[in-house]
Amino acid sequence: MDAVIRHLKENEQKWVDRLAECVSIASISGSPDHRDECIRQMHETEKMLQTLGATTEMVDIGTQKMHDGVTRPLPPVILGKLGEDPKKKTLLIYGHMDVQPALITDGWDTDPFVLTEKDGKMFGRGSTDDKGPVLGWLNVIESYQKTNTEIPINIKFCLEGMEESGSVNLEGVVRGRPDFFETNVDWVCISDNYFLGKSKPCVTYGLRGQMYFYVEITCAKQDLHSGVFGGSVHEATVELAHIISALVEPNGKIKVPGVMDQVDPATDEEMETYKNIDFNIEDFRGYLNAAKLTEDNKADLLMRRWRFPTLSFHGIQGAFAEPGEKTVIPGKVIGKFSIRLVPSMTFDHVENAVVSHVQKIHESLGTQNEVKCYLAKKPGRPWKAETDTPNFQAAIKAVTDVWGVAPDLTREGGSIPITLVFEEVTKKSVLLLPMGSCDDGAHSQNEKLNRINYTKGMEVFANYIDLLGKE
Amino acid sequence: MDAVIRHLKENEQKWVDRLAECVSIASISGSPDHRDECIRQMHETEKMLQTLGATTEMVDIGTQKMHDGVTRPLPPVILGKLGEDPKKKTLLIYGHMDVQPALITDGWDTDPFVLTEKDGKMFGRGSTDDKGPVLGWLNVIESYQKTNTEIPINIKFCLEGMEESGSVNLEGVVRGRPDFFETNVDWVCISDNYFLGKSKPCVTYGLRGQMYFYVEITCAKQDLHSGVFGGSVHEATVELAHIISALVEPNGKIKVPGVMDQVDPATDEEMETYKNIDFNIEDFRGYLNAAKLTEDNKADLLMRRWRFPTLSFHGIQGAFAEPGEKTVIPGKVIGKFSIRLVPSMTFDHVENAVVSHVQKIHESLGTQNEVKCYLAKKPGRPWKAETDTPNFQAAIKAVTDVWGVAPDLTREGGSIPITLVFEEVTKKSVLLLPMGSCDDGAHSQNEKLNRINYTKGMEVFANYIDLLGKE
Repeated sequence: MDAVIRHLKENEQKWVDRLAECVSIASISGSPDHRDECIRQMHETEKMLQTLGATTEMVDIGTQKMHDGVTRPLPPVILGKLGEDPKKKTLLIYGHMDVQPALITDGWDTDPFVLTEKDGKMFGRGSTDDKGPVLGWLNVIESYQKTNTEIPINIKFCLEGMEESGSVNLEGVVRGRPDFFETNVDWVCISDNYFLGKSKPCVTYGLRGQMYFYVEITCAKQDLHSGVFGGSVHEATVELAHIISALVEPNGKIKVPGVMDQVDPATDEEMETYKNIDFNIEDFRGYLNAAKLTEDNKADLLMRRWRFPTLSFHGIQGAFAEPGEKTVIPGKVIGKFSIRLVPSMTFDHVENAVVSHVQKIHESLGTQNEVKCYLAKKPGRPWKAETDTPNFQAAIKAVTDVWGVAPDLTREGGSIPITLVFEEVTKKSVLLLPMGSCDDGAHSQNEKLNRINYTKGMEVFANYIDLLGKE
Repeated sequence: MDAVIRHLKENEQKWVDRLAECVSIASISGSPDHRDECIRQMHETEKMLQTLGATTEMVDIGTQKMHDGVTRPLPPVILGKLGEDPKKKTLLIYGHMDVQPALITDGWDTDPFVLTEKDGKMFGRGSTDDKGPVLGWLNVIESYQKTNTEIPINIKFCLEGMEESGSVNLEGVVRGRPDFFETNVDWVCISDNYFLGKSKPCVTYGLRGQMYFYVEITCAKQDLHSGVFGGSVHEATVELAHIISALVEPNGKIKVPGVMDQVDPATDEEMETYKNIDFNIEDFRGYLNAAKLTEDNKADLLMRRWRFPTLSFHGIQGAFAEPGEKTVIPGKVIGKFSIRLVPSMTFDHVENAVVSHVQKIHESLGTQNEVKCYLAKKPGRPWKAETDTPNFQAAIKAVTDVWGVAPDLTREGGSIPITLVFEEVTKKSVLLLPMGSCDDGAHSQNEKLNRINYTKGMEVFANYIDLLGKE
């Protein structure tokens, strides 16, 4: 292992150059103009895997009608295998090579598709989400090979090019290929999330689920002039405001009866875990530039983010949303809100509670407007893993050895639905092993990956592979 | 007068052809691609006035930076004079020759710029708003002239090409030319509104004013991911929903303390006027396709539309407004609402009441978000005219003679700010004399003018001019 680590360190610039090359491909999965680049990125990634000796398969996942109305091929999913030694156990690694949109005019300080380093931060779209981590695995494998160090496990890759656009058709691939996913997988590792803070490493064992609701309100057959018709109708936007304010308080307290009933109570053991987590609530408040947070102590705020449901009101479709002053009474609006789910909330229970509460509020308002509340898309379940598995123990030890500090065990407030699918299909321990920091700005302007996160992250990966091999 | 009316009837097809020619000019004032057409329309209109022997002046009102970033000339305002006989009194006529945008793909059944008649309805953009009425005046003057009937009054025209885009710089022209507007004007007539119903004519004596408010709420320095940050901050959209629901009930009841205080009480005399107005509340409900209106009897509903203030929530800038599901917590949103004002509400009183109420609600919510409530643009005052003036009496008699029924005296819920400016500058009686019907769809798809409204409307204009001449 020492040789592997030495090789990683000695070739640091090579890994940075490789990341720069990868960042230069604008593989924006959601953009019609960039779909070709996204597909090219998958083929370039396949080549890199093949260079390492992996056998690869490009799974065609069909076509997609994009928002410009044109149907284009979806980027293929790469299934790769490196080593099929029956005497070794197998790690399945997931990652994605597509990125969020980015324009310099969005407010980037540098060209988003030219990796630019400043003060140890490597700026560029995809640097941290998720090209850096994926290349990290490849660089580690190359270092094993170049130093003639035997890789003590078999490795499988599942790499997609549609993660930033809803992982279209990925679930079908995972469920539809038992030969690849159900058999000969012993552990699963996903590196596509972030440290809780800027510098202390984490291993992540939980994600919230999600249910996205529409509440559709019709007060007239068409938009109306607020001068001519104001005072005649029960305005849909106003009814929506009343309904939203009956769903949630500004402090985040959910007012839908029954929604909190299924939330697992916090055990003493769980409460204990929050104590040592490295999280400064005042730094966090400052980062958001929020005048006040919903909680004023660390444990309560972390619990709000990780282990309690939240209800967010995202906006209104059909109302006036542009700059300026339009005097419209929208005839029909769709309010959009979502609830983040935690164990042991169930879809049916939450859906019933929300829909019946909206209906009750609507009836109490006496408008006779047409009000429909319904799920907008397939909901995603929350995920919480046991951390006393050999997979977690290996990851925790790998991080501790490299960083000199035990990682915080964290949960994430967000959702990565494929995590659960991997767990269900493989029936093995799945963990999230983040490389980047909380301030990487994954979907924002000036996305970056710290050079130290990249280099240390690779050492963690190398170490983790080594430790898994000793299982 | 009989000869004039006969000439009008005998030349009906000529007037329709003239309207068709005018509709074929796509004088969309708000569209960069159509600004040239809009200017051309003003020059064509000037030519028509000159053909009638009017002296005209094209007032340059400067340039405008349009929403494509390009600065273009504004269409000139036409000031025209027909007759300057010191022994005659003078009528000032206002109208506009620009139109709202229209595309066949918006859902028009016919080309919006080809006047197409079906079942007595002449479909085309601008047919009723406001090319039909403006041409009506010109056709009437031509009929006086062709029949060698002396026009018994002097006529002034103020015609603009920016009405559909905020009447940019018109007020400056009206206030800046006392030679034209302050002296030698005895009556003002505007034909740019509609019958209350489909068939019974009206003369209109009131308009509501308007105050447009922004309520700007900031909860974080940037948009946040609702998974990662949901539960941490006091979401701006949620606070907005609470504030809006504290401003107004879905039934339209304004909850801002003090806002109703200045509203003039309804006198018995006023209440009496509602009794005979031809307005079918059930037809109106059916036209809107609303399940239920805010009031269930005619007088109450008309009062809601004409003589009580309303508060409409138009939408949110900065929140998610597109189709689909975005899981954003907007960092900053601007809620937009407006209040329609009635006599004797004053700007200062209403602004203070609204701003202090919003601030009070915000404080009660305990969020410490940054909340600012302010007027978005210059407010417009309500207008209510005395109807016992010779101007109104002439209009009422003209309508009665032509239609065989006394017109309803109506108010409008909307605002035409230039009306008040004319009243202030001329210090004379201003009235609105509509030509079109309530279902003309002025700003909608399939805008139309009924042929009968056009022909009878011209007879009314001819008669009105004749009656004014007898004052």
